[in-house]
Amino acid sequence: MTVAMYPGSFDPVHNGHLAIIGVAASLFDQLIVAVGHNPAKESGMFTGPERLEMIEAAVEAEKLSGVRVVLFTGLVTDAAKAEGANCLVKGLRNGSDLDTELLQANMNLQSAGGGLHTVLLPGIGPDALISSRYVREIASRGGDVQPVVPEVVFDHLSRKFRD
Amino acid sequence: MTVAMYPGSFDPVHNGHLAIIGVAASLFDQLIVAVGHNPAKESGMFTGPERLEMIEAAVEAEKLSGVRVVLFTGLVTDAAKAEGANCLVKGLRNGSDLDTELLQANMNLQSAGGGLHTVLLPGIGPDALISSRYVREIASRGGDVQPVVPEVVFDHLSRKFRD
Amino acid sequence: MTVAMYPGSFDPVHNGHLAIIGVAASLFDQLIVAVGHNPAKESGMFTGPERLEMIEAAVEAEKLSGVRVVLFTGLVTDAAKAEGANCLVKGLRNGSDLDTELLQANMNLQSAGGGLHTVLLPGIGPDALISSRYVREIASRGGDVQPVVPEVVFDHLSRKFRD
Amino acid sequence: MTVAMYPGSFDPVHNGHLAIIGVAASLFDQLIVAVGHNPAKESGMFTGPERLEMIEAAVEAEKLSGVRVVLFTGLVTDAAKAEGANCLVKGLRNGSDLDTELLQANMNLQSAGGGLHTVLLPGIGPDALISSRYVREIASRGGDVQPVVPEVVFDHLSRKFRD
Amino acid sequence: MTVAMYPGSFDPVHNGHLAIIGVAASLFDQLIVAVGHNPAKESGMFTGPERLEMIEAAVEAEKLSGVRVVLFTGLVTDAAKAEGANCLVKGLRNGSDLDTELLQANMNLQSAGGGLHTVLLPGIGPDALISSRYVREIASRGGDVQPVVPEVVFDHLSRKFRD
Amino acid sequence: MTVAMYPGSFDPVHNGHLAIIGVAASLFDQLIVAVGHNPAKESGMFTGPERLEMIEAAVEAEKLSGVRVVLFTGLVTDAAKAEGANCLVKGLRNGSDLDTELLQANMNLQSAGGGLHTVLLPGIGPDALISSRYVREIASRGGDVQPVVPEVVFDHLSRKFRD
Repeated sequence: MTVAMYPGSFDPVHNGHLAIIGVAASLFDQLIVAVGHNPAKESGMFTGPERLEMIEAAVEAEKLSGVRVVLFTGLVTDAAKAEGANCLVKGLRNGSDLDTELLQANMNLQSAGGGLHTVLLPGIGPDALISSRYVREIASRGGDVQPVVPEVVFDHLSRKFRD
Repeated sequence: MTVAMYPGSFDPVHNGHLAIIGVAASLFDQLIVAVGHNPAKESGMFTGPERLEMIEAAVEAEKLSGVRVVLFTGLVTDAAKAEGANCLVKGLRNGSDLDTELLQANMNLQSAGGGLHTVLLPGIGPDALISSRYVREIASRGGDVQPVVPEVVFDHLSRKFRD
Repeated sequence: MTVAMYPGSFDPVHNGHLAIIGVAASLFDQLIVAVGHNPAKESGMFTGPERLEMIEAAVEAEKLSGVRVVLFTGLVTDAAKAEGANCLVKGLRNGSDLDTELLQANMNLQSAGGGLHTVLLPGIGPDALISSRYVREIASRGGDVQPVVPEVVFDHLSRKFRD
Repeated sequence: MTVAMYPGSFDPVHNGHLAIIGVAASLFDQLIVAVGHNPAKESGMFTGPERLEMIEAAVEAEKLSGVRVVLFTGLVTDAAKAEGANCLVKGLRNGSDLDTELLQANMNLQSAGGGLHTVLLPGIGPDALISSRYVREIASRGGDVQPVVPEVVFDHLSRKFRD
Repeated sequence: MTVAMYPGSFDPVHNGHLAIIGVAASLFDQLIVAVGHNPAKESGMFTGPERLEMIEAAVEAEKLSGVRVVLFTGLVTDAAKAEGANCLVKGLRNGSDLDTELLQANMNLQSAGGGLHTVLLPGIGPDALISSRYVREIASRGGDVQPVVPEVVFDHLSRKFRD
Repeated sequence: MTVAMYPGSFDPVHNGHLAIIGVAASLFDQLIVAVGHNPAKESGMFTGPERLEMIEAAVEAEKLSGVRVVLFTGLVTDAAKAEGANCLVKGLRNGSDLDTELLQANMNLQSAGGGLHTVLLPGIGPDALISSRYVREIASRGGDVQPVVPEVVFDHLSRKFRD
């Protein structure tokens, strides 16, 4: 049985992430979306628990099954071991992503003693070129991000920046 | 009529930027160089108004016509709308630039409701591989940046770091 | 007045090309789509005149104005001079395209004596990742290319490979 | 159940391919290595059946289970359907590979009507930077490829070029 | 006589750096490994002198001759002049590294008045994809970095994070 | 003593090659420019001996010392051994070049038993983005390549295509 872990900060989750979750959920027996955060020092736009909740709501809205969302702190390799995952999944938009992913895949493989491989899922189609960083920048300055995030995230962002 | 906006921080403008401005000014009816800054919290080496002034002086020294320089705060898409620009212009030096520009072009297009396209101008020739970040690092540590910046910038840097 | 030339082999034109034509037509006073071929030795899947006709039909179907389609043989820089174009337009999908385009932009600029600049339009959105080569391979082996080409091309391919 | 297909020409299979096969076999319920060739016009260094045999021998030597090797002609998407595969697996060494794979992944997804996703496995470690093309060039000119191919391939190459 | 300088922060040195040092030491008459730091404001995981010491120990353990390790503050070009180096050496893992190196090579060449060229050594083989940043992250969170750093660094990290 | 070999087809040599030769000649004790060709089946625009002659003339015109030009057939690694070279030098213009060079560097290192390293010299400045393929295409169709090739090559091309 293959249990895949999709780690990230998801601050917030966007349609590009959801496309990866949809593909990964169809390919692996179980998919664990793992939200990295530091409960002692939350530093994102949203807290870890808020980010988790938004992913859960979006995954439910898309009726994706076999997906579990968890929080983790520390190393991805430790989180994978704790959750019983036997591979990592990452989205891949372009060459810069690839350069980072090859370094991380190698470091994770070596520090995990060789058993934890990384699977890269290409971002293609209309949701391919989205970035949480730009979602935050645009939303926080009053721009429209509705086309690139799920409804639950749009609602959270609207509430946050209406005030 | 095509009004192009070339947004950036231009901290400070260098010969690579000026090559882009020269090409863009020859291609579009109007070119607006838009200097992004935050007047409430200036964080660059030069303030927004200083950066604007240096661009204006350099553009005049090169006798480029049809170029207007403005300051903006917030979203590029809002600045474009406010100035009546119907496309964005960006310089492109390499694959890392491209990866960033594709993400930004997509986010700007989607958040602007589809009408604001991005035009990429390749940096080629002797002024192709210059970076404001390295200009600042080199100048602030006493190195020579005269070959890569316009005279007005060289003078400003010399004054700043002579003291 | 800016007259842009979009050169290529367009064997055959696909939705990615049409997206570039649409953007370029909106940005420049005139757009010339220039189909490179060798009438003495047609080597593509379609002849030059067939490729031109399909582009014309697709451009008309999309109601794009200010677009002219021409055939050329030999150098792009000579075609640009002959047609009065003052810049070249190319689509840009990824880093490999960029590496080729930077070489070509430099060679064209230098061999044209400095006046012919190249403008790169990023391929983003659902039609970003299409390639004429794969259209030909898939269609010639009986695969479905309807989602990635205009109707007129789909009809031509269907007729060609039904036989 | 996830049945993955790893298509390629494998002319000949090398240690980089075998590393991908090993990882993919551990992740998916079944792995089909699909050797593309044209029986009417064999054009590689080895015929399709020879390439298949070498893969089978190498897979057996590495004691990998759940791997089946098949020949196919024509479209990868048709081969996947014929073999009941629900995803494609490709190795990924660098940005040039990525640019090709994103185009192919998109074309395959669209021409297959949306259901056939591509999974990219990063080539990392000592067998990361091998290429069949260079294996052929080096071996055919008397160079040593023993460090980069399985024993069965080394034997075949030795016999072929001893003569 | 060619004296090469290999500048970096080396915080800490890892097996990828050591592979570059080994190759460079074999190619040039002298190799100076130059550790950049700011003694007035040490900001790394290790101080400059600690980083230097670890490199010296690792170089000695590998029995590499012709290698000198120095500290520097400020510009690489000034350090090169001060040490009598006539070229710079950098490791190159991927396209992102390349984009940065081309910018730096050009800026260093221009600000040094043309005489200081940069030589890039490709990272290939089992130690190709290592990064000091990930070494720090993994070690500081209790992960195993033994496969990717020399023994002296492993000892330092173990002591630091045991406490 | 370091003897570097710069292999290539040089069909014909251009200003980008000469920039690399100039830098390499200044860095290594000896530089051997090695022109790969097949005397039994010359397939380039110029024969091997013609290409060699043009390089020799251009090197002499630039008064570069310590440079020897040779012809070779077969493997680069064999040529290097035959000429006593202990490293290879290649020019590097962009990420596509890098991807090819990393594969070749690895294959050459492994097939040579580990001792033959590759040094990459970045193409920067006005002669950075030149390609022999485009020189051939432009010159053969009557375009101007004078700005990108040495005088001796320009003369050869003029004579060849005047007829």
